[in-house]
Amino acid sequence: MKFEQPVSVQWLAEYTGAKLVGNTTQEATGINEIHKVTNGDISFVDFEKYYNACLNSAATIIIINKEVECPEGKTLLVTDDPFTAYVKIVKRFRPFEPASSMVSETAVIGEGTHLQPGVFVGNHVTIGRNCIIHPNVTIYDHTEIGDNVIIHAGCVIGADAFYFKRRRDRAVQYDKLESCGRVIIHNDVEIGAGTTIDKGVSGDTIIGEGTKLDNHIHIGHGAVIGRNCLFAAQTGIGGKAIIEDEVILWGQVGVSKDLTIGKGAVVLAQSGIPASVEGGKTYFGSPAGEAKPKMRELAWIKRIPDLWEKIYGNKSL
Amino acid sequence: MKFEQPVSVQWLAEYTGAKLVGNTTQEATGINEIHKVTNGDISFVDFEKYYNACLNSAATIIIINKEVECPEGKTLLVTDDPFTAYVKIVKRFRPFEPASSMVSETAVIGEGTHLQPGVFVGNHVTIGRNCIIHPNVTIYDHTEIGDNVIIHAGCVIGADAFYFKRRRDRAVQYDKLESCGRVIIHNDVEIGAGTTIDKGVSGDTIIGEGTKLDNHIHIGHGAVIGRNCLFAAQTGIGGKAIIEDEVILWGQVGVSKDLTIGKGAVVLAQSGIPASVEGGKTYFGSPAGEAKPKMRELAWIKRIPDLWEKIYGNKSL
Amino acid sequence: MKFEQPVSVQWLAEYTGAKLVGNTTQEATGINEIHKVTNGDISFVDFEKYYNACLNSAATIIIINKEVECPEGKTLLVTDDPFTAYVKIVKRFRPFEPASSMVSETAVIGEGTHLQPGVFVGNHVTIGRNCIIHPNVTIYDHTEIGDNVIIHAGCVIGADAFYFKRRRDRAVQYDKLESCGRVIIHNDVEIGAGTTIDKGVSGDTIIGEGTKLDNHIHIGHGAVIGRNCLFAAQTGIGGKAIIEDEVILWGQVGVSKDLTIGKGAVVLAQSGIPASVEGGKTYFGSPAGEAKPKMRELAWIKRIPDLWEKIYGNKSL
Repeated sequence: MKFEQPVSVQWLAEYTGAKLVGNTTQEATGINEIHKVTNGDISFVDFEKYYNACLNSAATIIIINKEVECPEGKTLLVTDDPFTAYVKIVKRFRPFEPASSMVSETAVIGEGTHLQPGVFVGNHVTIGRNCIIHPNVTIYDHTEIGDNVIIHAGCVIGADAFYFKRRRDRAVQYDKLESCGRVIIHNDVEIGAGTTIDKGVSGDTIIGEGTKLDNHIHIGHGAVIGRNCLFAAQTGIGGKAIIEDEVILWGQVGVSKDLTIGKGAVVLAQSGIPASVEGGKTYFGSPAGEAKPKMRELAWIKRIPDLWEKIYGNKSL
Repeated sequence: MKFEQPVSVQWLAEYTGAKLVGNTTQEATGINEIHKVTNGDISFVDFEKYYNACLNSAATIIIINKEVECPEGKTLLVTDDPFTAYVKIVKRFRPFEPASSMVSETAVIGEGTHLQPGVFVGNHVTIGRNCIIHPNVTIYDHTEIGDNVIIHAGCVIGADAFYFKRRRDRAVQYDKLESCGRVIIHNDVEIGAGTTIDKGVSGDTIIGEGTKLDNHIHIGHGAVIGRNCLFAAQTGIGGKAIIEDEVILWGQVGVSKDLTIGKGAVVLAQSGIPASVEGGKTYFGSPAGEAKPKMRELAWIKRIPDLWEKIYGNKSL
Repeated sequence: MKFEQPVSVQWLAEYTGAKLVGNTTQEATGINEIHKVTNGDISFVDFEKYYNACLNSAATIIIINKEVECPEGKTLLVTDDPFTAYVKIVKRFRPFEPASSMVSETAVIGEGTHLQPGVFVGNHVTIGRNCIIHPNVTIYDHTEIGDNVIIHAGCVIGADAFYFKRRRDRAVQYDKLESCGRVIIHNDVEIGAGTTIDKGVSGDTIIGEGTKLDNHIHIGHGAVIGRNCLFAAQTGIGGKAIIEDEVILWGQVGVSKDLTIGKGAVVLAQSGIPASVEGGKTYFGSPAGEAKPKMRELAWIKRIPDLWEKIYGNKSL
């Protein structure tokens, strides 16, 4: 997320109770998770093994739990609990804003777009032209929707990322990483009934142009779905997965987080994709492999009793 | 779908820009996909290999992309793009009608039926007697619901079929086949929270008398579910599947499209049914087979290391 | 369920048309399924093989379909159809109460709690302090929600148990066991978009303190989920399952009914848990076993062709 206006590191230090190290006069222009940082951003790190990655990233302001040497031109905000400081800043600049009506006055709705009854449109939402938003859809704050988009009834666009930090020493162990990303839906997308698309933790969840999603699909936080993809019902996509253009996922497929499915890949029904796979191929199984060898494995399994009989003289289990 | 009034083939030719061949004076009484056509219907065909099937079907008016010999008594509408012409006719006779209120004035609601708050009832919907429609349910236009039906909160009945034609030469590749079928729910059906039932492309999606569906179930377009079926949560049924009476599907089962599950079959949890199966039996696995042999396969797999040791003298992987 | 006021067995006999046997003057204080009965409760039994279990349970009043010897101090209500009598009593004391507004006047909402637009709150619901209930959520009657709870859009809390008695000799075969249990959500729980949590048949469905549920999760009737659990999207939990504290279920996991998952267990994505498993271990597969041996099985399967070749001299399928 980028801020609407730059924020001084001195204010940030005071707001979070952190000690300022390095450049003490610059301004932050945004806040992001480590894998999304760009120049001017605040990020945080709280494990020693990730210190170098964060200090050498594009982040300009780093919230850190140890006073280490500050890279040239950067600022450290040193505090015992960088996670809590990061969340505090996110909540300050992207607070929960209770709605006063079903359709926020700050929403921008394009010409020719129909909002059916029972649709909730949050604050700072943009919806393009010639869209149909069917009844009882919920669109959270800051969502951006293109033209010619159809969203079927009961969908939820922009709910919070499912992302927590575990604190084993507390009674309530999971601390929520507050989300400040958005959902961006490009032109000509159709979304089936009851599908949910979560916002990114700090970046955006994106549904590419012309992609069609069936019912009951789950798209995790920060996933980036390409153009002209087709996902059948009850498929789930983990957080930050990248699905390239023209990928076809059949029903009840599960895709793990933090991976890439290459362009034009096809995944057969009920398969589970645990790690990145190349495009242009067909996959099957849980965990999935290429479909043909996987199908042959099923045939080989049926031959085990014959092997057993050949060696032991019987097929009894 | 049948039209409310017959439509002349001359008007159809003009409306779609098609050339009229064969009988030029008759009237169309409906429009249907090829597998649903009856006498008087318009249908379409755009692949040469399906020409004969379509020309010899019950369809009376055929939209086709080549001027072939017209069967006796039929009419051809010859156009470069039969799909687009078909969709144009569907949209003309089954247009999207924006709602002006949560419950349409054209809906017919039976005596003793309770609509809880937040229920959307579309145009031309019929709901029988003594039903309970729980909050935030969406019922799309043209749905028909019998007596003593219970629909739990958040369900979506009658969303569009997930059915597209791919055009690889365009930027936006998937063209939507507009749906003109309906959802028909018979008496004494109960539908769990968040379940979605799509309308048929041109025919009806049917839920038979006394069938009980759990939560988060997906019923695809044009599926026909028999009487006294029991489907557990998160199960998905593909388009045009036929599930005969008294079938029991346990949780997270996936059923592919265009197949039949015979009467009284039982499918165990998380199984996937890829093709038609006989009734009266129990199935398991993904892809599923009869449950007992499938369970035995799992036991045989555990014996592979013993076979290996017998032959190679060790069990190391 | 406990009654608000005790009910005399004479009134019960008259109301259900049952014959009174044993103590004819006492009062019932509640009604429960056999596995939930406590002293003073009504329960029912209609299979001879379960007679002893029910007669010797904590139930004080037993609806039974045969006039057997009545245990000391108890009361029998003898009727041909105990199920129907039980359901009739449940419906009398926990009737469906149609709502007159989106938020019932009988609901108690704590300070600092935000109900977003489109939220339905049923009768006799309690919601604690500092909660956020996002748009289009449905909360059925009698639900109890603690403090600091976040429920994302489209969730359904407290729908009826999916529990039916089959009557093969009737046209409509499934008789509904009316639910009188509740959903209890403890403090600091977060529930993802479109998740459904059913009420218990007679006891309560419980979500323990600090537990986080992702989107599209199904929690069956009477399930008891511990503290600090983490369930990923599209996971389903069967009725009356007990999930102990700190259990982690990854995406699309299925858990059968009537079992226990021990404290701290981890279940990998798409796995199916068919029976109770110990805590502190990681599970995988459908049906699941311990993850490491299950993963090794997958490697062994790939070796079958080598075994076959060694014995038969070829690898052809």
